[in-house]
Amino acid sequence: MASTTPPDVAARVEASIRRFKLTRLLSQDQAGRRITLLGTIDDLPALLLAERAAFAVDNAYLSSFPTSLSRIKNLGANDVYAWFLANRAFPSSSYPSHGEKDEGEEGEDGDAFHAPDFKLSLIHPCTPKHVAKYTPAPLRLVTETPAVYAAYIRPWIAAQRAPPALAWIANILAGTSEQDDVLHRNADPQRGFVLLPDLNWDRKSVAGLHLLVLVARSDVWSMRDLQHGDAAWLRGLSADVRRTVGELYGVDEDQVKLYVHYQPTYHHFHVHVVHVQAEAGATQAVGKAVLLESVVGMLEAVGEGRGMADVSVAYTVSEGSGIWDKVWGVLKDGGVPDVSKF
Amino acid sequence: MASTTPPDVAARVEASIRRFKLTRLLSQDQAGRRITLLGTIDDLPALLLAERAAFAVDNAYLSSFPTSLSRIKNLGANDVYAWFLANRAFPSSSYPSHGEKDEGEEGEDGDAFHAPDFKLSLIHPCTPKHVAKYTPAPLRLVTETPAVYAAYIRPWIAAQRAPPALAWIANILAGTSEQDDVLHRNADPQRGFVLLPDLNWDRKSVAGLHLLVLVARSDVWSMRDLQHGDAAWLRGLSADVRRTVGELYGVDEDQVKLYVHYQPTYHHFHVHVVHVQAEAGATQAVGKAVLLESVVGMLEAVGEGRGMADVSVAYTVSEGSGIWDKVWGVLKDGGVPDVSKF
Repeated sequence: MASTTPPDVAARVEASIRRFKLTRLLSQDQAGRRITLLGTIDDLPALLLAERAAFAVDNAYLSSFPTSLSRIKNLGANDVYAWFLANRAFPSSSYPSHGEKDEGEEGEDGDAFHAPDFKLSLIHPCTPKHVAKYTPAPLRLVTETPAVYAAYIRPWIAAQRAPPALAWIANILAGTSEQDDVLHRNADPQRGFVLLPDLNWDRKSVAGLHLLVLVARSDVWSMRDLQHGDAAWLRGLSADVRRTVGELYGVDEDQVKLYVHYQPTYHHFHVHVVHVQAEAGATQAVGKAVLLESVVGMLEAVGEGRGMADVSVAYTVSEGSGIWDKVWGVLKDGGVPDVSKF
Repeated sequence: MASTTPPDVAARVEASIRRFKLTRLLSQDQAGRRITLLGTIDDLPALLLAERAAFAVDNAYLSSFPTSLSRIKNLGANDVYAWFLANRAFPSSSYPSHGEKDEGEEGEDGDAFHAPDFKLSLIHPCTPKHVAKYTPAPLRLVTETPAVYAAYIRPWIAAQRAPPALAWIANILAGTSEQDDVLHRNADPQRGFVLLPDLNWDRKSVAGLHLLVLVARSDVWSMRDLQHGDAAWLRGLSADVRRTVGELYGVDEDQVKLYVHYQPTYHHFHVHVVHVQAEAGATQAVGKAVLLESVVGMLEAVGEGRGMADVSVAYTVSEGSGIWDKVWGVLKDGGVPDVSKF
């Protein structure tokens, strides 16, 4: 990390950062951890790009991390869980006066001195189950041919739908629960749907918009059940959803992206709706997400009497998940999945 | 942000964080900005999840940000560009001794006290072109029907391929440039390909692996040129690449994900190769990426004599990009793109 810049140049550019005068925030991305500021230095225009550094992962860093914190502020605690904001501290040798006495003191300095550096969560005492949850499970890419779908995956999905697994969806569609969350309802039994906010959306930032469409039809377990003849229904659904989102949030119809998951978390057909500007993470990644327009394109291409069940589909599966243990892990080991045990 | 926790509980959990003793790093994600540590507090197992906070974006924070930095360390400078590491400072009222005198001092405290908090880049003086580059362009989702592809997009792609646009690819394939970067070469004129590291890969972290496959065939401009009869070629290519990546990096064949971009950045058919565990961002998002297995599945489904040019495809386009200005923006305004001006 040693600089190759001549020392006088390095000193000059380092000093110029402190003279940066803000005009305005130009952009913000990477979950808010990168910002671009437009401003001036010595009356000439300048851009300052700042991003939060990644954590170091060497043992020396990680061991001293808990004691390197200051201004730890508890936000809440429940059972074994507690969450906090915190700042980093400087070495005690450099700052002998360091301690908790600055807690809550707001001097005449700007807010950037007081903003939190870290969000922390503590689970104590934790169980092996907690440890498993936070240990990354290896993923495997599998290719589900029409034959594998028919023989093993469709029966596995049927087992996932056994009551009361989907009762919560029936309750939302029937209007008996979560009605405060329903943003829009189309009551048509065949073309109807309910629009809800996704759990991961803060319900504030329109650029981060993430909604879910639960369709009224209960005969579509996943995209695999969609037939050539459903293309028109899906085109209409897409148009309805775009128009509704436009009315609710002032988003143009071509600023909305619709996709489905395969495998989905629950097997009642539902569609994810995000703002095109929303930051794309695992939920939008190929190998998990399929654009609704792609599904429609495929349905139109496969022709009369055929559907998504006739197409090979690849996706990622976590080792240790139910579908891995019952189907994909067995196939990988050269075995035959036992449908009677699904 | 006020805590609802009783003060004695808050004080107890805040103090317990400092007594956290590290056992090991359990996971790391969000581009290294979130870590999960396994350890003990008072001899009971505990998990500590730490993530870098997002930047505040209010004016008070952003205005004081440049002066809130300490230990600004220049890493390099070139023309109007300079880049740095930096730490946050505490308010001068709390730490009257604060200044640059700690620069480079490494006391007996742990490394976490010295690790950088921020990466900075400065462009000074900057031009309107720099400002435009860092101002987010609105994205629009477009649906490219077979008719739009044939009438406007294929001619637009042909124009993008005008010499010398793809000379660099010819040079790599011919073995006259970037040969130090070539990880593997299959010299077959029809089934051949060259494997290269993607520019965004650090070439170190196998879990972040990102490679590119440039195919030897130059008659495939994009996935739109793929025909039903190409499915077998692509299946073979996928198997070759998986085997090669396994040999080079010790990655299992089902731990690799292959996808293409549409629209791609350059119009010579190439395939992205990533580790399934790699963090998914915009490069893997639906509306930009299409899984190679999905392309193969579609080619098999469309039947003899047809291909990807017969399927509707949706993708996002930046306003102000060439394809927006020449095609999509014109169509949105109800106009007819002028192919003679591509």
